[in-house]
Amino acid sequence: MSDTEKLLLIPGPIVISEAVRKAQSIQSLAHTSPEFIKIFQNTLKNLRKLFKSTNAKDQGVVIAGSGTLGWDITASNLVYPGDNVLVLSTGFFSDSFAECLRVYGANVDVLTAPVGDVVPNDDIAKKLQEKKYSVITITHVDTSTAVVSDVEAIAAVVKKVSPETLIVVDGVCSVGVEDIEFTKWGLDYVLSASQKAIGVPSGLSIGFLSERAVERALNRPTQSTFFASLQRWLPILVNYEAGKPSYFATPAIQTVNALNVSLEEILESGLDARFAKNKQTSQKFKAALADLGVGIVPVNETVAASGLTAAYFPEGIDGGKFISDVYAKGVVIAGGIHKQLVGKYFRVGHMGVSALDDSLGHIDTAIRVITEALEDQKK
Amino acid sequence: MSDTEKLLLIPGPIVISEAVRKAQSIQSLAHTSPEFIKIFQNTLKNLRKLFKSTNAKDQGVVIAGSGTLGWDITASNLVYPGDNVLVLSTGFFSDSFAECLRVYGANVDVLTAPVGDVVPNDDIAKKLQEKKYSVITITHVDTSTAVVSDVEAIAAVVKKVSPETLIVVDGVCSVGVEDIEFTKWGLDYVLSASQKAIGVPSGLSIGFLSERAVERALNRPTQSTFFASLQRWLPILVNYEAGKPSYFATPAIQTVNALNVSLEEILESGLDARFAKNKQTSQKFKAALADLGVGIVPVNETVAASGLTAAYFPEGIDGGKFISDVYAKGVVIAGGIHKQLVGKYFRVGHMGVSALDDSLGHIDTAIRVITEALEDQKK
Repeated sequence: MSDTEKLLLIPGPIVISEAVRKAQSIQSLAHTSPEFIKIFQNTLKNLRKLFKSTNAKDQGVVIAGSGTLGWDITASNLVYPGDNVLVLSTGFFSDSFAECLRVYGANVDVLTAPVGDVVPNDDIAKKLQEKKYSVITITHVDTSTAVVSDVEAIAAVVKKVSPETLIVVDGVCSVGVEDIEFTKWGLDYVLSASQKAIGVPSGLSIGFLSERAVERALNRPTQSTFFASLQRWLPILVNYEAGKPSYFATPAIQTVNALNVSLEEILESGLDARFAKNKQTSQKFKAALADLGVGIVPVNETVAASGLTAAYFPEGIDGGKFISDVYAKGVVIAGGIHKQLVGKYFRVGHMGVSALDDSLGHIDTAIRVITEALEDQKK
Repeated sequence: MSDTEKLLLIPGPIVISEAVRKAQSIQSLAHTSPEFIKIFQNTLKNLRKLFKSTNAKDQGVVIAGSGTLGWDITASNLVYPGDNVLVLSTGFFSDSFAECLRVYGANVDVLTAPVGDVVPNDDIAKKLQEKKYSVITITHVDTSTAVVSDVEAIAAVVKKVSPETLIVVDGVCSVGVEDIEFTKWGLDYVLSASQKAIGVPSGLSIGFLSERAVERALNRPTQSTFFASLQRWLPILVNYEAGKPSYFATPAIQTVNALNVSLEEILESGLDARFAKNKQTSQKFKAALADLGVGIVPVNETVAASGLTAAYFPEGIDGGKFISDVYAKGVVIAGGIHKQLVGKYFRVGHMGVSALDDSLGHIDTAIRVITEALEDQKK
């Protein structure tokens, strides 16, 4: 069995739908052709719906790259040199975001949550009262711990204590699976990637900017990047969305086309219904693990993400062997990458079609195979 | 006729082969899966052959992005803050590269060639004698003018006058169509993109670094980028090429797979045979234009690129109407983008399968349609 025939259930890349696969393999188009302009225009318009934005001056961002590029976009556009940035850390990816911000000269303070938990809102409020922060970053779902932060509640704290602070959300592992109300919650930049719950091949940095984030980027006094510069990209994106050709760097034509098809699929079935189904699948999977005596990393259900599960190897189980056995049985899951827990836990993604289409049987297969692999070691 | 059914003959993206299209649509793979590691390993190994490198300490680079990202990689890794950089400009793209270098704090001097020509080697030698340059950049083929620079001869000048200067080649529109002898000529970084003569969908920055470029990047005292940082990418690329999984940012799985297939196709038919056939196709196309009384932008055959042709609209021809008419007849060509010549010329790409496989009839179709469109305006 080749890897492409195995069931891919890591926290991204995820299994993509047949329609998305087809969209990924179209013959190349000119980036300024009427057909591609229409594709890109529709994609950018649909991003507004995905983020539930009601402000026409917000702007979607799609650039060839990866989720990581969104950190550079934040650091080199929304943060001015010498700005204070408050990073809420719920794991490995939050800390890497902080590292990226420092590279670009930000003064970064990190509030670190206990492993498997979120940062208490009172601590956030206190910190925001102590110092003026230009930007706060929230990792919506940290893929290393599968902890979900309550972005709505945190945003409310920021609005109350320090309304001028821009709210940046790392939604790499949340966009398309957790609810995000961009306008209602008052967010300023949500950055994501194509290969997780958005259900597209990897290769795109996908984001959404508020009106004031756009202004912050356009007014930045100095430039520190070329490829990630919003001063260069914004006119291009605005043009494409208005149906006009524009050029700064060649977009990833096929992957943008795949994104267009995936967004149509996502919106067609209804966002809230999608999030509810994702939650249901997540609860089903976590309940099955609980039945097997497998504990999860998040300290309680409230902070457990819907798109993936991070779970501890039960006592007496050889983790490496367990993951290999699951792989041999045809299911690809991932090891853990959180420094304090490495070797102690595994991660299973349940996003996109795998979580939404029960008829595929992906989650049932995962539960069966995990059960077998655990039992094999007890023999 | 939809745009995907039209014959795409712009200077990139270009028509991709059926095998590459198929490779672009594989189901997603884990970036750390044995199968993807093998794909990426093979890709990185084959890049050595594509660049005719014989030094095992050189390193191929493949990162999700676009050709433009290669400029940021140069500016933020090989150029140290305050370094002098000499840019040889043969058009729009050379000038944009200079702009990118300045953003990162380089002191840039530009030697600008007359439109349609290259910078004389004597001028380059003189400039290198006047000042110590850390890096010289050569745009191998500037897509705005279709002028090809003699990289071998320029490199020889640099080696003689200022051997410590790193030689960076923008090969976005040359890699895969013009000969590049990385080791023999003593190059340090050739940057390219996937969607031109390499024959892959857009979405990848593809490059090749010399041993001393690798050292320059690794020894850079300060960091000015995260996503484009070779200090972060090099260990990852070395690991993948050694068959070991590694993570910094998620690669564009499907497009890397397409690159792997395309490189196999390119190497299978023989590099030199490919370059010779490309040259032959280019000469055939240019001769056909000459027969129609259409003059090309490059001042003579020696400086005319093999992968595309930039040609002036003949007197009395409405350029916009001509390009539209060609489009209506099913062939997509491009307008000009060089500031001094905008509206006066058009560009036709002849790279990849369109140039190499006569049985497809792409070039004959282009000649026929261009002839008809010109005749239509004479009626």
